[in-house]
Amino acid sequence: MADRIRALRNLFSPQMDGYIIVNDKNMLYFTGFSGGSRLLIPPSRGEVTFFVNSVNYEAAKEKAKNVNVELVNIGEDADRKLTEEISRLKLRHIGFDVLRASTYIKLKEQLKEAKLEPAEEIVWSLRKVKNQEEVALAKKAAELTSRGMNKAFEVVAAGMKEREVAAEIECEMRRLGSDGVAFETIVGSGPNSAFPHGGCGDRKIERGDFVTIDVGAKYRDYCADLTRTFIIGEPSPRCAEIYETVREAQELAFNQIGVGVETKKVDGAAREYIEKKGYGKYFVHSVGHGVGLDIHEPPTLGPSSKDVLSSGNIVTVEPGIYVPKLGGVRIEDTVLVLEDGAKKLTEAPIPHSL
Amino acid sequence: MADRIRALRNLFSPQMDGYIIVNDKNMLYFTGFSGGSRLLIPPSRGEVTFFVNSVNYEAAKEKAKNVNVELVNIGEDADRKLTEEISRLKLRHIGFDVLRASTYIKLKEQLKEAKLEPAEEIVWSLRKVKNQEEVALAKKAAELTSRGMNKAFEVVAAGMKEREVAAEIECEMRRLGSDGVAFETIVGSGPNSAFPHGGCGDRKIERGDFVTIDVGAKYRDYCADLTRTFIIGEPSPRCAEIYETVREAQELAFNQIGVGVETKKVDGAAREYIEKKGYGKYFVHSVGHGVGLDIHEPPTLGPSSKDVLSSGNIVTVEPGIYVPKLGGVRIEDTVLVLEDGAKKLTEAPIPHSL
Repeated sequence: MADRIRALRNLFSPQMDGYIIVNDKNMLYFTGFSGGSRLLIPPSRGEVTFFVNSVNYEAAKEKAKNVNVELVNIGEDADRKLTEEISRLKLRHIGFDVLRASTYIKLKEQLKEAKLEPAEEIVWSLRKVKNQEEVALAKKAAELTSRGMNKAFEVVAAGMKEREVAAEIECEMRRLGSDGVAFETIVGSGPNSAFPHGGCGDRKIERGDFVTIDVGAKYRDYCADLTRTFIIGEPSPRCAEIYETVREAQELAFNQIGVGVETKKVDGAAREYIEKKGYGKYFVHSVGHGVGLDIHEPPTLGPSSKDVLSSGNIVTVEPGIYVPKLGGVRIEDTVLVLEDGAKKLTEAPIPHSL
Repeated sequence: MADRIRALRNLFSPQMDGYIIVNDKNMLYFTGFSGGSRLLIPPSRGEVTFFVNSVNYEAAKEKAKNVNVELVNIGEDADRKLTEEISRLKLRHIGFDVLRASTYIKLKEQLKEAKLEPAEEIVWSLRKVKNQEEVALAKKAAELTSRGMNKAFEVVAAGMKEREVAAEIECEMRRLGSDGVAFETIVGSGPNSAFPHGGCGDRKIERGDFVTIDVGAKYRDYCADLTRTFIIGEPSPRCAEIYETVREAQELAFNQIGVGVETKKVDGAAREYIEKKGYGKYFVHSVGHGVGLDIHEPPTLGPSSKDVLSSGNIVTVEPGIYVPKLGGVRIEDTVLVLEDGAKKLTEAPIPHSL
């Protein structure tokens, strides 16, 4: 963790002489503990102070070994303690990750001499490159996710409710060691599959339905993301065409992944193919996103993204076609970018019918 | 939903001629759909516009019937569309719920003529009073939560890992119809029970341990919250005293709950008793919080709270004593405030040993 704080300091802009972290995942990343209130990182050699409410004080002292943990008692204001420390250190130009506007306004009033500047991107430039230990946890999350999907293949059948399928998947992952889900499981059947983020409901799966299942396990705070779509029974020719188009688009996009590649090229590979097949207007999202402590994080892989892939990025590749009323198909894997290419961390068959 | 927007408009300050909603739970509350990007509420009679990215556009049109759903295409900027609409309507003093500082700064630059003001509290003054339909969902969430806790009573035993107990609870709730957990389940055994928000790990439960289990189901977006602590085997005299102190404190606090009561009095009832018993410094959090679409929401029930309870509030009552290294006890129920008193929505035995 100390090396991460050092790396962050190296990314301070020349004017910047401090940084405030408020986001819980960022706290976890830099200290090993997510339950603090504010983390203040002064320039090099200054002691890092972690302001923690009494409810989490003992836990913070146990877990955040690389920083000075400062108690915020019941009734005390963490921001008041923070600004006092900033004044004491005479910091003048402070970056921050994701303050609320109301907190920003309050801090500005209390720190009339200092400039406060949003600078989340320097945290992301670190977080989006995973080290070996992080990759190991993400792999484990992906493995549990794949096992959840395999459970879905095993149990799904006409007559079953969407939410029953979701329950089976989640219990399988939890019992195998997942710490919970990385996001609300999606089981969308028939017309519901046309909603990319449709959750799951009481609809009973019918023969001939598309069933889109999007699932992610969390393991020691790391997320994975996997989607498969299949048809219960024989697909109509149109459904089969949509399915094959997405399958092919996913392969084309996956084949683009590599170090130094502009992420918009990955998106483009899938999008151009889907457009060529006449389904362009039904591909209503970007082809992928980073995955890590958050389920959606940089880099983004969309048509207007400016990101370039580097070794240690973990991203999804997930084109989709969603035809309102008819249904939707999405095929998604979580992929690790390597020096010499790319490796799918999630593993599940891509069967067009079951 | 239309009546909620009307109620919000009635709470606009005299200068305010518009309101921006960004928080997903607030969007859900006012439109029935959580997946939009920005919701703009102009003053009375103006049409409410819901800016929604293409990925969720079809779902929003299906679910958010009371507002005008405006498509934000891939590559378009929702904030640009929002500021154009604000300029077109000539809005001059706009409240908002929870903008990020970076968005706030951007909007201020784009809206030089308008004043932007944090005004989250007017949303909370609505959300913290639950209507009949919301109470029904919260009751169902609480019932599922209670069944999860009963499962814990059934399975917990020396030799079991904390995370195995959590898995059993979560699977029980999910299979019975929960939509997932309202927060990460806590199963803290032995010294781990001294961390109020300790999550759960690989520690095996031992005879003589305190085991603190804090669990919440989610049902149709509503949360519940329930904690029980018990001892596996016979408690030592000190552990028995700590347990009885918390049990008594919870009863004292619960008995305070009623319409018109200052929440700090509820906190005080538990805190004074715990202090009298000599454990004051180990009660390191407030006695409770509101529960609804969020697991932690207003009103707060702490020593410096200014809230006053009203009919339709749903709050937790959860004193605790946490002795580092030894362990901790917390007893918590989710409680509905009624005209003529209070009703516990969660139900589980309070056994001091199992």
